[in-house]
This record gives sequence, C-alpha cells and structure tokens, in this order.
Amino acid sequence: MANDQSSSLNDVNIDAVVSLVGQIQQEPDVAATKWSAHVEWKGGFRSEAKIRDFAPSASDEPGTLGGTDSAPNPVEQVLAALGNCLVVGYAANATAAGIEIKDLSIDIEGDLDLHTFLGMSEGNAGYENISVKVNIDSDASPEALQALHDKVTNTSPVGHTLGRVVPVKIELA
Amino acid sequence: MANDQSSSLNDVNIDAVVSLVGQIQQEPDVAATKWSAHVEWKGGFRSEAKIRDFAPSASDEPGTLGGTDSAPNPVEQVLAALGNCLVVGYAANATAAGIEIKDLSIDIEGDLDLHTFLGMSEGNAGYENISVKVNIDSDASPEALQALHDKVTNTSPVGHTLGRVVPVKIELA
Repeated sequence: MANDQSSSLNDVNIDAVVSLVGQIQQEPDVAATKWSAHVEWKGGFRSEAKIRDFAPSASDEPGTLGGTDSAPNPVEQVLAALGNCLVVGYAANATAAGIEIKDLSIDIEGDLDLHTFLGMSEGNAGYENISVKVNIDSDASPEALQALHDKVTNTSPVGHTLGRVVPVKIELA
Repeated sequence: MANDQSSSLNDVNIDAVVSLVGQIQQEPDVAATKWSAHVEWKGGFRSEAKIRDFAPSASDEPGTLGGTDSAPNPVEQVLAALGNCLVVGYAANATAAGIEIKDLSIDIEGDLDLHTFLGMSEGNAGYENISVKVNIDSDASPEALQALHDKVTNTSPVGHTLGRVVPVKIELA
C-alpha cells in the first residue's frame, strides 16, 4: 500500500529505483554502466548527436562565433545536461523522502573565456565557473528541502562530472 | 581572394572567427562570455531544457533507472556535447590550416558507477573516464592531422570543462 502511494508521488516510478538498488546489492557489477553518443559533422560548425534510437539532436554555434545559429551550442548543452540531471536527483530523492514537488525549475549559468578556444592564449578553454539556482515549490519544511538539496548535490552524476577531474582520452581512429 | 576561398572551405565562416579574434585583440572583455540554460521539470524524471529561443529539448531516464525512456538522459547529453564541441574545434582549426574535411564523425563513451547516485556509497557520482574516437576523412598528411588533433584537444571548451575541476555552485532560490 505504501508502495502504491509512493509510486505515484511526483509521477516517479520509485519501485524501479528500489528494485535497481536491490539488484546492485546482489550483483555490484550492475552499477557499472556505460553510456555513449555518436556525433556526425554536418558542415560548418553544425553537427548531429545520435543517442541510442532517439532522433538526432542538432548543434551549432552563434553567428558571432562563426556558426549559422541553427541550434544550441555545445557549452550550452552542458548546462542543460546539468539542469536535467539535477531534476532527476530532486525527483528521485524527494520521492524517496515522501516529499511532494509541486513545481521545479532550474536556472544554470556559466562563464567561459574564449581566449584559449580561439588560440589567443594557452590555458583553460572550459567553464571558469557554473552557478545554478533551483526553484522548488513544495509544502515540505525548509529543513527537509535543505536536506534534499544537500543529498542531490552530493550525488549528482553530471554535477560531479563537472566539479571533478574526469580523465578524457581523445584519439584519432 | 584567399579569403573567399577560405570562407567556403568546410563550409566554415572563418572570416567571422577572424573578426572575433580581431575584436578581442582590441577589447579583451569581449572574450568573457556567459552562457545559460533554463530547465523545467515535467514530472517523473522528465524535463525540458530551454536555451535562448530554440525549441525545448527533452530529457528522461531509461526504465531500469525509473524513467519513461522518452529521451536521452543527462549523462548521455554530456557525451553528445563533448562530441559536438570537438566537431567545432576540428572544423575551425582545419579551416584555419587550409585542411579540407571530407567527413567527420565522433564516437564518445563513458563509464559511470551508479552506487553514489543511488545513495549506496559516498564518492564519485560522475564519469570515471570518458573515451573518444575521432573518425576524420581528409587528404591531409597524417602529420597535419595529428597537429590538428593536438590543437583541438588542447583548446576544447567542453573537453576542458570535463577534464578539469569546474567550481559548480548550486543554490536553492
């Protein structure tokens, strides 16, 4: 009965998550996941990314950067991925804690200096910093929301990917 | 004349890039760019990311992770962003070097252990490593392609964002 209730809270299938946890307790290797994407150049600064069987998604650069501005650019896509990841973290952990989320939106912003990308100096071509504002509408207490927030930020796959050093090996095939 | 030629090479508007470099040489602050995204929760593990005026793009998780599998998930989106970013780097630097790219595709893969995300242990919730294979078809010499590759990997905004520590500040609004 409690399970039936929790299954519909926030429209999250928490049973699937609980079942995955159980599976990993039995067989820890199940937690070792591999993810992939395939990207095709479409001329200029345009490309399409193919993930599993989903429709390809487009990428481009703004005109000032030499693109044709037909789609979000890669550094914007990174910010979107972070917001999407945090949404999953909030939805999952709120549901596990019995917290109803009425509404949730996330604003992400990042500063990036173009000197390195443009070959004008050596150094960091990536984001110097990223800041995120989480707007959550819930009747839960401020303490419960803060505890939720701490849990989410401590367990965010994309948050950790950005906040830590990931060994990235890039090879010519 | 040389400019007319380079403008059409790889369909890259290299003049726009050159002009941006000139602008930044005059006014270094122009290089300090800010990027942003807005993400709205759509129930369950679904969300939509809005970037500038582009159509929102969807995010979800596979069924095994408790989602409804209606779109790529956030950690896949990160890999796609890296591939898209490398495409821009190759197209830009190849064009600047006078190298014609006939075809270019990029395969990206990453390993991620779910224990931390699922709250089963503390540690790294993000990618343990990311590996990229670049398939480039060009008549340029292997040496020229290797020099291009080195330049691209040393100046990739998303590559550096993943390979370095980015301070990520996440706050409840």
